[in-house]
Amino acid sequence: MINYILKDENAVYHECGFSCDNVLFIKLGSEAFFITDPRYTVEAKESVKNAEVIEAPRDLYIEAKKILKKSSVKKIFFDPKNFTVADFEKLKKTVGVTFKASPNFSQKKRIIKSQEEIELLKIAAKLGSEAFDRYAKYLQNCGAKKSEQYINFEAVRELSSNGKYDLSFHPITAVGENAAKPHAYAGEKLLEVDELLLVDAGLKYKRFCSDRTRTAQFTSKLNFEKVQKFKNLKMQKIYDTVLKAQEASIKAVKPGVKANEIDKVGRDVIEKAGFGEFFVHSTGHGVGLDIHELPVISKKSSMVIEENMVFTIEPGIYLPNEFGVRIEDTIRVTGDGVEIL
Amino acid sequence: MINYILKDENAVYHECGFSCDNVLFIKLGSEAFFITDPRYTVEAKESVKNAEVIEAPRDLYIEAKKILKKSSVKKIFFDPKNFTVADFEKLKKTVGVTFKASPNFSQKKRIIKSQEEIELLKIAAKLGSEAFDRYAKYLQNCGAKKSEQYINFEAVRELSSNGKYDLSFHPITAVGENAAKPHAYAGEKLLEVDELLLVDAGLKYKRFCSDRTRTAQFTSKLNFEKVQKFKNLKMQKIYDTVLKAQEASIKAVKPGVKANEIDKVGRDVIEKAGFGEFFVHSTGHGVGLDIHELPVISKKSSMVIEENMVFTIEPGIYLPNEFGVRIEDTIRVTGDGVEIL
Repeated sequence: MINYILKDENAVYHECGFSCDNVLFIKLGSEAFFITDPRYTVEAKESVKNAEVIEAPRDLYIEAKKILKKSSVKKIFFDPKNFTVADFEKLKKTVGVTFKASPNFSQKKRIIKSQEEIELLKIAAKLGSEAFDRYAKYLQNCGAKKSEQYINFEAVRELSSNGKYDLSFHPITAVGENAAKPHAYAGEKLLEVDELLLVDAGLKYKRFCSDRTRTAQFTSKLNFEKVQKFKNLKMQKIYDTVLKAQEASIKAVKPGVKANEIDKVGRDVIEKAGFGEFFVHSTGHGVGLDIHELPVISKKSSMVIEENMVFTIEPGIYLPNEFGVRIEDTIRVTGDGVEIL
Repeated sequence: MINYILKDENAVYHECGFSCDNVLFIKLGSEAFFITDPRYTVEAKESVKNAEVIEAPRDLYIEAKKILKKSSVKKIFFDPKNFTVADFEKLKKTVGVTFKASPNFSQKKRIIKSQEEIELLKIAAKLGSEAFDRYAKYLQNCGAKKSEQYINFEAVRELSSNGKYDLSFHPITAVGENAAKPHAYAGEKLLEVDELLLVDAGLKYKRFCSDRTRTAQFTSKLNFEKVQKFKNLKMQKIYDTVLKAQEASIKAVKPGVKANEIDKVGRDVIEKAGFGEFFVHSTGHGVGLDIHELPVISKKSSMVIEENMVFTIEPGIYLPNEFGVRIEDTIRVTGDGVEIL
């Protein structure tokens, strides 16, 4: 694939070391073009590597079509997930060029991480883990009766180190029955002593994401270790089941297995314990420049796992109107198993 | 337009009072369907009004096609800006249904704000304005030598009232020559006494956005009033030119004028002062559920302005490697002029 056009911010970053939220990137053999609007050209000219920065005074697509017309290219690849129907209507009118859809082609290029990328992902994971520990201490000190919204902002503060790091996504901090909603919004509910608290959060280090989830009981000894003690026996049973499922899936990871085999061993643990219907999502997703990238670790995914893929293992059980438990780590596939980042 | 399919989060919210980041909304005459995945169905069933919540165990498009097939609908509208080429490939295979592209049709429906929406936009603007004032006091107290990143996070903290409100967009807090980049990223540059500081920020109240920009000189008397004193004469001249342009454009707003006439009167002020080439963007944009919606106030926009449209007026002058000035308010069109929100 030597000729392609990209629009996705991270796909473009991967090509040239800079990106912004209004860009088209065109690769034509050994030539490359970074097309953006005047808001971004000052920074782009400072930072884009191995591509010519083109300022589009009006529509980026007009400049893209000029470049394609000037070249002798006949066929160019694009990702149909990154272009809207309206964008593509403008592009496809370019005379003499055929556009070939290739879904996720940038993510496929990025699925095996380089040593340099693994180092950045490790740093992100370490910073994320340290932020979880600081956050636990903060919550111990501030005590009960704080709202989900309040503790949610404190998660933003700790994860970002007061704005130093971008976040992988807006943190989920769900209390009690709100944790039964896998993607709960933080509300006005107050955190009470002994309540269950689910925290799913990550940060970006040099654009590479961390991702982690911990579930714990809110006490004066709150911590985000993986072994947890709950006073409520049902919570303890569910928690231990999810942990056992996570450990089983992690143990199943090595080069050559299929993604759905990793999903199955964890799902089996949860099904055997009688909670199969309450594990309502897939086991994991790739992590890199995007917080959700390839591979997908699900029932349906027959993708073969290879060394230096990086993805999450995050089973969960969600009992509507009661509570939910999820435990998530980001792992790297090694030559014969896994390294937890 | 009685049959349509929506995907955009705010467009869906406008229809049924709830939304999430994975939804398809189908309106077929008097019937409506909110299709989402199991992560969101608990909350959706609690909050969606006037539509049936459908849980899609796998792909939302499979459920959407089932609904369309079951109905007798022949033609359905969609917004080509909200569906990717890949999404639309799945949809358009629905036998017997023709999909008609109608760009921005939800934003067009929402362009004249209701009294209720105006009240929410006013509250958002008031909360935003109060946050700017608190932020000025905070910066006075914390003094110089703080990094852009640091003061950026404090803008997040003040605008969100410690996480109580979502933000309209990530705040821009640009110091000195960084303010010459209309969409600058906050870096490690330190804020020094007497430097220029540009702050562009807004928050959401019940999903409705505020948007405001102020430029000021960082002194112990920092404030975000519109009349500003700069020690640097060139800064003062540029500032006064931008303010004059903003006032001229605001004065030009009333029902019946065209958007490009509003743009022109402000742009003329800046061109006559000799800085026309440094006003590199349009004059304004609509504000509502989306931070950028209709109408567009630009050279090219011949849209006729009507009462109860709400949009920004935000001229700017950006001198590369020196500094930039932008002044922005959000206004409502009244029967014979404007109300600044």
